[in-house]
Amino acid sequence: MATALNQDQLDQHRLTLINALDQGDADQVQRLCDEELAPVEIAHIMESTPGRVRELLWQFLDEDQQGEVLSHLNDDLQQAFLGQMSAYEILETTQDLDRDDLADMLQQVSPQLSSEVLGLMPPEERARVEGLLAYPEDSAGGLMNTDIITVRADVRLEAVLRYLRRRELPTQLDALWVVDRQFIYVGTLPLVKLLTHSPDTRVRDIMDSEIEGIPAATGENQVAQIFERHDLVSAPVVNDDGTLLGRITIDDVVDVIRDSADHTVMSMAGLDEDQDTFSPVIKSSRNRAIWLGLNMVTAFIAATVMSRFEASIAQIVALAVLSPVVASMGGIAGSQTLTLMIRGMATGHINRDNLRWLVLRELGVGALNGLLWALVIGSITLFWYKDPSLAVVIGAAITINLIVAVLAGATLPFLLKSLNIDPALSGSVILTTITDVVGFLTFLSLATFFLL
Amino acid sequence: MATALNQDQLDQHRLTLINALDQGDADQVQRLCDEELAPVEIAHIMESTPGRVRELLWQFLDEDQQGEVLSHLNDDLQQAFLGQMSAYEILETTQDLDRDDLADMLQQVSPQLSSEVLGLMPPEERARVEGLLAYPEDSAGGLMNTDIITVRADVRLEAVLRYLRRRELPTQLDALWVVDRQFIYVGTLPLVKLLTHSPDTRVRDIMDSEIEGIPAATGENQVAQIFERHDLVSAPVVNDDGTLLGRITIDDVVDVIRDSADHTVMSMAGLDEDQDTFSPVIKSSRNRAIWLGLNMVTAFIAATVMSRFEASIAQIVALAVLSPVVASMGGIAGSQTLTLMIRGMATGHINRDNLRWLVLRELGVGALNGLLWALVIGSITLFWYKDPSLAVVIGAAITINLIVAVLAGATLPFLLKSLNIDPALSGSVILTTITDVVGFLTFLSLATFFLL
Repeated sequence: MATALNQDQLDQHRLTLINALDQGDADQVQRLCDEELAPVEIAHIMESTPGRVRELLWQFLDEDQQGEVLSHLNDDLQQAFLGQMSAYEILETTQDLDRDDLADMLQQVSPQLSSEVLGLMPPEERARVEGLLAYPEDSAGGLMNTDIITVRADVRLEAVLRYLRRRELPTQLDALWVVDRQFIYVGTLPLVKLLTHSPDTRVRDIMDSEIEGIPAATGENQVAQIFERHDLVSAPVVNDDGTLLGRITIDDVVDVIRDSADHTVMSMAGLDEDQDTFSPVIKSSRNRAIWLGLNMVTAFIAATVMSRFEASIAQIVALAVLSPVVASMGGIAGSQTLTLMIRGMATGHINRDNLRWLVLRELGVGALNGLLWALVIGSITLFWYKDPSLAVVIGAAITINLIVAVLAGATLPFLLKSLNIDPALSGSVILTTITDVVGFLTFLSLATFFLL
Repeated sequence: MATALNQDQLDQHRLTLINALDQGDADQVQRLCDEELAPVEIAHIMESTPGRVRELLWQFLDEDQQGEVLSHLNDDLQQAFLGQMSAYEILETTQDLDRDDLADMLQQVSPQLSSEVLGLMPPEERARVEGLLAYPEDSAGGLMNTDIITVRADVRLEAVLRYLRRRELPTQLDALWVVDRQFIYVGTLPLVKLLTHSPDTRVRDIMDSEIEGIPAATGENQVAQIFERHDLVSAPVVNDDGTLLGRITIDDVVDVIRDSADHTVMSMAGLDEDQDTFSPVIKSSRNRAIWLGLNMVTAFIAATVMSRFEASIAQIVALAVLSPVVASMGGIAGSQTLTLMIRGMATGHINRDNLRWLVLRELGVGALNGLLWALVIGSITLFWYKDPSLAVVIGAAITINLIVAVLAGATLPFLLKSLNIDPALSGSVILTTITDVVGFLTFLSLATFFLL
């Protein structure tokens, strides 16, 4: 079965499969699932189709296929399918999967179902999976696999090779971990070195003792940064006293990077990155409704501010027409700063001490752009409404609002993070409230004061 | 020199270095650069500080260090430093780097400087780098490294091992590529298999012939999807007739994934993902000004629409207060759909045939949420202004605007992509224009028609 490395090929497979399903050609579907499509492709196809087709497809997979496909599905879908299964079915389906994949899946089901599944396992295996579950999902301990191969520093390479030949080796192996008698991690032995040195070399002479172990409590984003920064393919995970617990491989880290980046994008629109793109209507609507509700509150807060100036607006209707311009300029400028800060924090470039420089820089940007656009918008207003005082007022309001907006955008993320609130999700709502309120307030009060 | 795998350690190193620079302690800075800090750390520190400190730090690095640090810097900074160097200096500084890293750097400088550098190289090396430059930066050919190790299918493993021991091996090696006499790619030989099979096994008996080569013209995002989907650590790149050209390793793909996700986030705010977070004020202001200008045009288009109804607003000032509420609800709902679609397209889940289902689903979501919030906002309006007709009008406007917003959000990305325009960058501007204009138009015209 050739691996479809090509998006076009994958699309073709998907179309063939969907057509076969539509036409009720069960034999064709079965053939495709058994002979043509790899589990990871089937998972991707399931993520790209609505519920009805998904459920149908699931029926055509045998237990082992279901297990493999499950391990490639996103959290939302894993939860959907696992939730329909009994503890026994889950155990049977996942029996050939890595134990860390099973641990990840158990975190998607109810605690009750999870305990049931664990209860059905042989004691040694249960202890292993429980060990993996002991760590938060988004930590190094939660990402790691305990399927590690260790050697001791004093053995010769020929013994290591004999050992490797007897064992079943994990799929992704680029290095062996060197430990002492207490299972304390002491170094790394890359496979490449194993190949190129003479068999009677001792491990300790060629091992790499500079790569440190990653503490199990390290957050997943930090783990990702470590991998990226040092171009790692795998890394050892240790506990507080240096004992080797497991290893993290690059494929898990790639998922973290993708999810973390997705998270920023999705959260800033009030969406969940684990969300199934193909949720049915009701479920999708519910997810969005909360965010819309929050923004409605924001909008009404700004509306209340404007309503305080109804008398002014009644006299100079231009104020109604121009207020949204002031508010939206602030909103855009603030969003840019906010996005820059959130992304800078995610990549580890921004922290407490360079924040001050950044806030001052943003102040400068806000002032410069504020003055520039105050001039432009003031001129347009003058040309439109032929009222110089109005032009000056809107110019002043734009300048003030832009400065406030960038300052808010620069300080909010850090403030929210220090209160343990996710800045991507809440930052944009709070920022919009600020820029709308300040925009309306400055413009309308300045106008009321100077023009009426 | 222990590798700082820890963000706190990295922060500490950075603080120590910044302090030493501030205090003018040249010896300490030199010591830190030579003994304590790895090039990748120095690069990260430089990305986390403003220009003045960066320039200072650069002076403390010797040529080789500069080369290594350069290879870890983002595009913006690479361009800044390389642009200050002569062709000879560039060649000297980068002499120990992989040729594909050099090729990447040459793409950041002016074509003139690039040709000068190439002109200074020995012919064989020049041909190699020119070969790499022949491919677009954002393609498989642009990502690959030509530093590959090939073997033939008919040789025995013992010969392969002898060959490996004689050669200098690349840093990241997880597999060897098997080619025939015409250098056509035929299969992969994972290092693990090399270790665990007896030395007189022939390569062809254990090689993996199912992994296909990635065509050199494949876009980088597709390459990333392929790596993610199949948990690859490296993959062969071939040209149209199957000849092996080079290999892509996971570390380059991780950069692509990070950049691609950053691109979506940053573009939706009108920023460039390659942008240096610590640009000086003038440069930053200039970058943002264009986006602000574009949004100003959008805001004025919407203002023009509202100005057509100045007579109505003069009579019912509530219309001025409530219009922004209608517009912003549409804007938020539309953004959610837009974000969902853009991300779905980036992950390869959405394409021409499931788009129809998605648009219909969004229509449903828009209608449901439209009706829900029409009810809520209508009620609030009734409670606030005690005017039932106004409440009904705003309810109708909200419903219409939300439906239009989600439909726009669902169709715009695909439309823009088919016109070869980046949906992340342009989508949000166009969407805001639509939701603001439709919001104001429906609300104010319905109000004018039914209330006046």
